[in-house]
Amino acid sequence: KTHTDCMSSRRLVKLPGLIDTHVHVREPGATHKEDYASCTAAALAGGVTMICAMPNTNPAVTNQETLTLVENLARKNARCDYAIYMGASSDNYSAIPELAPQVAGLKMYLNETFTTLRLNDLNTWTKHLANWPKKAPICVHAEGQTTAAVILMASLQNRPIHICHVARKEEILIIKAAKEKGLNITCEVCPHHLFLSTEDVKTLGVCKSQVRPVLMSPEDQQALWDNLHVIDCFATDHAPHTLEEKTSSSPPPGFPGLETILPLLLNAVNENKLTIDDIVTKFYRNPKKIFNLPDQPNTYVEIDLDEEWTIPEATTYSKAKWTPFAGRKVKGAVHRVVLRGEVAFVDGQILVQPGFGQNVRTWDKKTFDEVIAPPTVTTGEYN
Amino acid sequence: KTHTDCMSSRRLVKLPGLIDTHVHVREPGATHKEDYASCTAAALAGGVTMICAMPNTNPAVTNQETLTLVENLARKNARCDYAIYMGASSDNYSAIPELAPQVAGLKMYLNETFTTLRLNDLNTWTKHLANWPKKAPICVHAEGQTTAAVILMASLQNRPIHICHVARKEEILIIKAAKEKGLNITCEVCPHHLFLSTEDVKTLGVCKSQVRPVLMSPEDQQALWDNLHVIDCFATDHAPHTLEEKTSSSPPPGFPGLETILPLLLNAVNENKLTIDDIVTKFYRNPKKIFNLPDQPNTYVEIDLDEEWTIPEATTYSKAKWTPFAGRKVKGAVHRVVLRGEVAFVDGQILVQPGFGQNVRTWDKKTFDEVIAPPTVTTGEYN
Ligand SMILES: [Zn+2]
Ligand SMILES: [Zn+2]
Ligand SMILES: [Zn+2]
Ligand SMILES: [Zn+2]
Ligand SMILES: [Zn+2]
Ligand SMILES: [Zn+2]
Ligand SMILES: [Zn+2]
Ligand SMILES: [Zn+2]
Repeated sequence: KTHTDCMSSRRLVKLPGLIDTHVHVREPGATHKEDYASCTAAALAGGVTMICAMPNTNPAVTNQETLTLVENLARKNARCDYAIYMGASSDNYSAIPELAPQVAGLKMYLNETFTTLRLNDLNTWTKHLANWPKKAPICVHAEGQTTAAVILMASLQNRPIHICHVARKEEILIIKAAKEKGLNITCEVCPHHLFLSTEDVKTLGVCKSQVRPVLMSPEDQQALWDNLHVIDCFATDHAPHTLEEKTSSSPPPGFPGLETILPLLLNAVNENKLTIDDIVTKFYRNPKKIFNLPDQPNTYVEIDLDEEWTIPEATTYSKAKWTPFAGRKVKGAVHRVVLRGEVAFVDGQILVQPGFGQNVRTWDKKTFDEVIAPPTVTTGEYN
Repeated sequence: KTHTDCMSSRRLVKLPGLIDTHVHVREPGATHKEDYASCTAAALAGGVTMICAMPNTNPAVTNQETLTLVENLARKNARCDYAIYMGASSDNYSAIPELAPQVAGLKMYLNETFTTLRLNDLNTWTKHLANWPKKAPICVHAEGQTTAAVILMASLQNRPIHICHVARKEEILIIKAAKEKGLNITCEVCPHHLFLSTEDVKTLGVCKSQVRPVLMSPEDQQALWDNLHVIDCFATDHAPHTLEEKTSSSPPPGFPGLETILPLLLNAVNENKLTIDDIVTKFYRNPKKIFNLPDQPNTYVEIDLDEEWTIPEATTYSKAKWTPFAGRKVKGAVHRVVLRGEVAFVDGQILVQPGFGQNVRTWDKKTFDEVIAPPTVTTGEYN
């Protein structure tokens, strides 16, 4: 319980276990890129104790059968807690609403991206937006004018909608205007759109830079920082591919992000671009509220605000074994992660096994609400 | 004044001079396709006494200079009355609002089509939607999800928007839902989307069938008829190209429509798919109201509901000299058109010269309001 490497002069801060609502686990179908064991190890190493797993696996999660398949894989292999998304397809809008209580939420792909689940027709959007329970979350991949389109479509159905990975100035400004109008929208931003831009393509190369939404201009990037108050959530869009795939002639889009998101955010705190409270709000409170996720009892993350280090070439736990942030000097690190009373990560070591993670949609919320009050930020517990 | 060809047994009906708010005159820049003299002759032959001319000419109308250029050409050559649209470009949103009183309205191109004026960036949309006077019309080429996007963008600016050439089921249903929500939207439908579908591509051939929005499925077509009450206006989107161009290896999109729209609508009346009042509402009252167009004194159209004829291979007045409706048997014809007291068209003959047409945005509205009450429908004046 005591750690001799931690000097009292350091600013150790206790945060709640962080919640990443946008993670591509790649299992089933592409476990050479990632699987539940490796993905959730990367999560814990990044201070993330709960992930929501995207449905664009192979097979994709679009019905009870594929959901059960992925639930079984996750139950055996996950080290941290999780929920699994249902994917909206062109023909499952009638069958899936009854599955809403079992899943993280409904994911709708409205633009061309790394998936087979793209929805083109507005009538299909409407059927999903109308049928999916109003209290259950829907999140969308909707870029540029598609952001505006889906905000209208959701508002016509009087239902909330969550916009994934906002990246463009035009997107954040339309979300801002729509929120000011009183529309029920939330959104997330990814670390690679906050901390990378087209300026970084020179260094990364065109192949490794591939991601959807693409890396944007410095002006777009600045607009995200200027409108941080409009952004509800931080989420990684952790989308691992191997270095070999990323440097091939047709590199697939996506970056690993779980191991680096919190250090990058803490570094931004040290640069006075963010506060610790921003991190707790956007990477714990808001995701928990928007996605109606339960408390994890006895769960917290100890971070070290003073640790200076350089992000290595390769991820430690993700099978991606590369990162677009390689070589970046950061001040701020994850020190220890406690998940439901167990030390899951400490000083670089993962201490929980595959199978320790639980599907939070199987929890009886009342029980847990009685057990423990939600963790809160405590600064300087060790000082 | 009396016409011996008109037997008393025929149902001759007097309509107000019809208003087509969506016409591509092609002058300047492509007068081999059409010019003001030929276009307005085609309009009169179709019972249309006022046209609104689209700005995607060459040069395009995007500022005072190009507007003056087109105004001068129109003044010399138009046979019927007209107004000219301003085109929204990526950089004219600050300069053009002061020109609003001089033009038909602002046209925004939001999808790929036959123009150089496409606007991609939502921030540019917003600047136009915010700057253009709220009482001055804006109409948009916005297909599919772009329809939804621009409805949201306009509603965020608390301004009305007119959706051009609705063609898809998904478009008319979203407009219906948005109207039910109380949003300030109007829309138009074109004769080729009401009377043609992908079923007609077999006969027309792929080249001649090119049009934007494309010809849609019979299901889409039926949705327009099923939701006729949602459609505010009929408009031709008269977009002439020569037969030689249409049958070339890269056929440009667009159909001539002025000479055939009213006969096709009258034929639909005879088939009990429409009423005369629908025509007056959607092809006169609503365009007049939505685009704030003035009364044309002493102006009316006499139509013959019983005349049966076959649409010929070539247009009579449009330089297009072809029509996608060739060979169609219709019951209903334009008999006589009186424009500001002059017989402009009778029994197939155009009787007014280029220069007779006036720019209605130069009229002092009050004077005309005092002179004459708006024309009303009078059935069976000749019986
Ligand atoms: Zn330690
Ligand atoms: Zn996405
Ligand atoms: Zn994603
Ligand atoms: Zn430490
Ligand atoms: Zn006659
Ligand atoms: Zn158009
Ligand atoms: Zn047009
Ligand atoms: Zn006659």
